[in-house]
Amino acid sequence: MIKVVVLGAGNLASHLIEVFEKSKELTIVQVYNRSAGRLSYIKGNIPVTTDIRHLEDADIYILCLADDAIEEVSEMLPFTNKLIVHTSGTVPLNAINNKNRRGVFYPLQSFTTDKKVDFTAIPICLEAENTEDMSTLKNLAGGISNHSYEINSKQRKVLHLAAVFVNNFTNHLFYIGSDICKTHQIPFKILHPLIHETAEKLKDLSPYDAQTGPARRNDIKTINSHLNQLDNNTQKEIYKLLTQSIQKAYGREKL
Amino acid sequence: MIKVVVLGAGNLASHLIEVFEKSKELTIVQVYNRSAGRLSYIKGNIPVTTDIRHLEDADIYILCLADDAIEEVSEMLPFTNKLIVHTSGTVPLNAINNKNRRGVFYPLQSFTTDKKVDFTAIPICLEAENTEDMSTLKNLAGGISNHSYEINSKQRKVLHLAAVFVNNFTNHLFYIGSDICKTHQIPFKILHPLIHETAEKLKDLSPYDAQTGPARRNDIKTINSHLNQLDNNTQKEIYKLLTQSIQKAYGREKL
Repeated sequence: MIKVVVLGAGNLASHLIEVFEKSKELTIVQVYNRSAGRLSYIKGNIPVTTDIRHLEDADIYILCLADDAIEEVSEMLPFTNKLIVHTSGTVPLNAINNKNRRGVFYPLQSFTTDKKVDFTAIPICLEAENTEDMSTLKNLAGGISNHSYEINSKQRKVLHLAAVFVNNFTNHLFYIGSDICKTHQIPFKILHPLIHETAEKLKDLSPYDAQTGPARRNDIKTINSHLNQLDNNTQKEIYKLLTQSIQKAYGREKL
Repeated sequence: MIKVVVLGAGNLASHLIEVFEKSKELTIVQVYNRSAGRLSYIKGNIPVTTDIRHLEDADIYILCLADDAIEEVSEMLPFTNKLIVHTSGTVPLNAINNKNRRGVFYPLQSFTTDKKVDFTAIPICLEAENTEDMSTLKNLAGGISNHSYEINSKQRKVLHLAAVFVNNFTNHLFYIGSDICKTHQIPFKILHPLIHETAEKLKDLSPYDAQTGPARRNDIKTINSHLNQLDNNTQKEIYKLLTQSIQKAYGREKL
């Protein structure tokens, strides 16, 4: 049984606490948060504290904190040589104070409050300073997910950048699609199955092979007709730039 | 029982023929294609012809043709006052020659050869010139899908434009994500669950509310760090433009 202390009570912390509680392979011995207010959702059977000097003994201390709080809080820890991990996609391992053994436990997913998450499908990116700690982290990850990967700090930083493209920017394209539909009294839900299929296709095809549309087949007539239909300048610029990028990727001449 | 003649033997035609064959509410009386070669995959029990003068009698003639062939082929039809529909997202209803009754039967999905499609979830956009023909088209759509919508030619054109954003451009962002991963020896499949969740979220949240990431929270430090990490200029431009567009949508100052 792996003993875990969670530090922080925000969005990720609440999701982790929920899934840790269900796992038979680990136990939450304590949740720490600076202010008591945010600890109020923690159920009665998990001990909580707002005093960092009173942390319980555990195998792993998980920092679920804002990126810029990791360094400071890890320095305040009242012990040495224990395994401390942060959960950030962007902060390097060595932001954690080196008086303790350091690691990273980064669940690669976008967490929304109030939305249930199936952790078994979420990839957990792990980093540690030695094989024994990595083994502990793999056991911890294995308790909640079927997918864990050893990813170093440099790779994790790159992964976070790639995630911005496939998640944040993709969602913004959905927003533009919904905005275009709204302007013309079309229910956006007509596009939901297409969006679903666009993601689903990646199970069988690489994104390079899955590409379709006017830019891919260099259909200048349709491209120009679409540009004429757009009267929002930002949307027009995005249409042009992404079309050019697709044409470039498939070796066609420039727009 | 609705009697259908399919004209064309390409990608969409093959998918439609497959699903029409399974439906109890309609029957394919014939498939026409100009060249015999592409008709070879049609199974023995469906009559085929390469001679447009020998079309069988049917309730609906479905043109599964390239956009620019619709006008010409509809003019060549050897009869009048029958219901002819095309299946294009971009071509207006009146591209079909007016010697026959005209309509549109547009399944809004991206079809890839060899990939099975669940038609029941695909929205079918319908247009007709009178209520009786619309009723026939609704019955046809109902035989294969649970979702049909009355969409006029102008709305369909707009829908096709919105689809380029949420499908073609989104897929290209997946490609950029995979390209970034490849450059740093990271398996792209780590991002699959995130991509899946990005699409899945739309079931519960509007894309406006689902937006997360550095641009949404105006995290200039992370944005600049990401821009520094990108050495592909096109990718850098796309990052900048989409970040600006998100900041604009959420009322933040410009990058």
